[in-house]
Amino acid sequence: MKTLHINLGERSYDIRIAPGILDKAGEEIKKVCPKARRLFVVTDSNVFPLYLTRLANSLTAAGFEMTALTVPAGEHSKCASELANLWEKMLASGLTRTDAVVALGGGVVGDLSGFAAATALRGVDFVQIPTTLLAQVDSSVGGKVAIDLRAGKNLAGCFWQPKLVLMDPDTLNTLSDATFADGMAEVIKYGCIRDKDFFDFLCAHPTRAEIMANIESILYQCCDIKRSVVEEDERDTGARMVLNFGHTIGHAYELSGHYEQWTHGQAVAAGMVTAARLGVTLGVTPPELPGQIEAALAPLGLPTEIPCDSGTYAAAIGRDKKGTGADITLVLLDQMGHAVLRKMPKEQVLDLLV
Amino acid sequence: MKTLHINLGERSYDIRIAPGILDKAGEEIKKVCPKARRLFVVTDSNVFPLYLTRLANSLTAAGFEMTALTVPAGEHSKCASELANLWEKMLASGLTRTDAVVALGGGVVGDLSGFAAATALRGVDFVQIPTTLLAQVDSSVGGKVAIDLRAGKNLAGCFWQPKLVLMDPDTLNTLSDATFADGMAEVIKYGCIRDKDFFDFLCAHPTRAEIMANIESILYQCCDIKRSVVEEDERDTGARMVLNFGHTIGHAYELSGHYEQWTHGQAVAAGMVTAARLGVTLGVTPPELPGQIEAALAPLGLPTEIPCDSGTYAAAIGRDKKGTGADITLVLLDQMGHAVLRKMPKEQVLDLLV
Repeated sequence: MKTLHINLGERSYDIRIAPGILDKAGEEIKKVCPKARRLFVVTDSNVFPLYLTRLANSLTAAGFEMTALTVPAGEHSKCASELANLWEKMLASGLTRTDAVVALGGGVVGDLSGFAAATALRGVDFVQIPTTLLAQVDSSVGGKVAIDLRAGKNLAGCFWQPKLVLMDPDTLNTLSDATFADGMAEVIKYGCIRDKDFFDFLCAHPTRAEIMANIESILYQCCDIKRSVVEEDERDTGARMVLNFGHTIGHAYELSGHYEQWTHGQAVAAGMVTAARLGVTLGVTPPELPGQIEAALAPLGLPTEIPCDSGTYAAAIGRDKKGTGADITLVLLDQMGHAVLRKMPKEQVLDLLV
Repeated sequence: MKTLHINLGERSYDIRIAPGILDKAGEEIKKVCPKARRLFVVTDSNVFPLYLTRLANSLTAAGFEMTALTVPAGEHSKCASELANLWEKMLASGLTRTDAVVALGGGVVGDLSGFAAATALRGVDFVQIPTTLLAQVDSSVGGKVAIDLRAGKNLAGCFWQPKLVLMDPDTLNTLSDATFADGMAEVIKYGCIRDKDFFDFLCAHPTRAEIMANIESILYQCCDIKRSVVEEDERDTGARMVLNFGHTIGHAYELSGHYEQWTHGQAVAAGMVTAARLGVTLGVTPPELPGQIEAALAPLGLPTEIPCDSGTYAAAIGRDKKGTGADITLVLLDQMGHAVLRKMPKEQVLDLLV
């Protein structure tokens, strides 16, 4: 088992990574929530048939009373009405301030139930058991929880750190190749922005089998990089922005496909290549770098290019939005493994993109 | 003008009390939110015709863009669907992370819009302009924001400190005598739990006219007492409980009248008398004290006794609720102006109450 300690003062917590840890969730949660008697588990319709029984058995064996709620799989569950439903069900289950909420699933389940945990009874303990690669390397570090509004994604939420994160790499075996690749886009991003050796390692182990053979250390490495960024900037006021490498442009690609044609990971993959090319044009990024990123993404079946028109780029960058200002902060690479922030006029960025 | 500084580290803020300060809200907000360009004002259908135009004029004169949303007056607006509506309207208005939300009204408006401010875009600045006595002395200090759920009041929410609180005592002139008295129950509570001289002062000035002649210092005194309690215990983990004097029993009275027959202030008034009598029975409270509290409440038309059956007391105390434990912490007075906490078996408390 690998354990990573996230140091955020009194909101510090551990991430524990081990195959089969799902079956030890009860005893692990007991250690960090010694006063909890009842656990409210949130999962989705995909994960529920795969892993809920094992989790329930472990929790019950550890002496917890448990209530489970299954939300429909998919982004549309990250909404205000599902949040209200969670609140009501939590309180109806008898949850008290010393109990805890457990998220079993991907990013949607984590974001939704984390927001509910942050606000039910003005905040109860929260344990995350992410079961997708994307959730394991991304949403389980950082403390950002949220729902979507009509105006956009993640627009209502707060910061709420978990008490514990348990990652069972075996849960990744039930992901489709496409969903696995989705998470790999973020894995590769961590190499790009913070660790050339890690990036090189990923290039040398491009198949899913090779990745899974090293998955514990890969998960640890990604979370450790995100940890170092988040510890510097818990409330996301500046430095954390390097984590957005490929994401602003990726957002344009998600928009251009109406959030249906391209997944988040696919959009970020192509977004990183475009951001690298933009960096080359601006004289910030070494010219060989876009090709290196393409070479890392392609074996996983991730796209390195997505067509997008100027209006969609403008919408993603927020050129037309009132109050967002005339400038945008770009995340660029000045070498493989090192990101820098560059503030530029949005108009100039748009001219270079199209 | 009186200014009270609430010292909570980087979440510190000022309460500014002055007749007519409503007309200076724009310039006051400008000082604490220098980056804000847009303000989203939330008010209710009672307050809107009385004060919104004056506030809007002041905000516009200070150069702010403003959007106002009016919710129906009454506790039922503190609900999940109204919160979702606020989120959508805030984002649709173009609110950004450097803008602010302004609450103009009583406790319902403050709690609802404060929760929306705490969570829209993961938290934007919040300014409170409480217009009722209860909101001025109670909900504008402490940072508790929330909505009600079917399972009970204030069950979903968080802690979110305002950037500024503006109190215009002139707004109290439009309150009915009953609503004014409602706030006075909390005012008298502060004397009971923390300041005998203040209690004596209130007894010597029992009419609404006498109170209004001293309103600035009364508001200051109440907020200063709550400040001293909250600064010790920002996240409400123990010491803050003294503020609940009269409230647990008062809750039983609210329940017994189905939240319709008795207002919060009326229930707290009778709850304080009953709590004082309970303290006498337990040998904690001096025997003359219940009569002193009755003498302070009666001239305002506040009830000193409310009939309640044992089942309702049990429900309010949570005897039958799973997971709330067998004990309850009572707030008792061991002398006028000094509250103490006593942990006791719920069964014993119920035996004494009925």
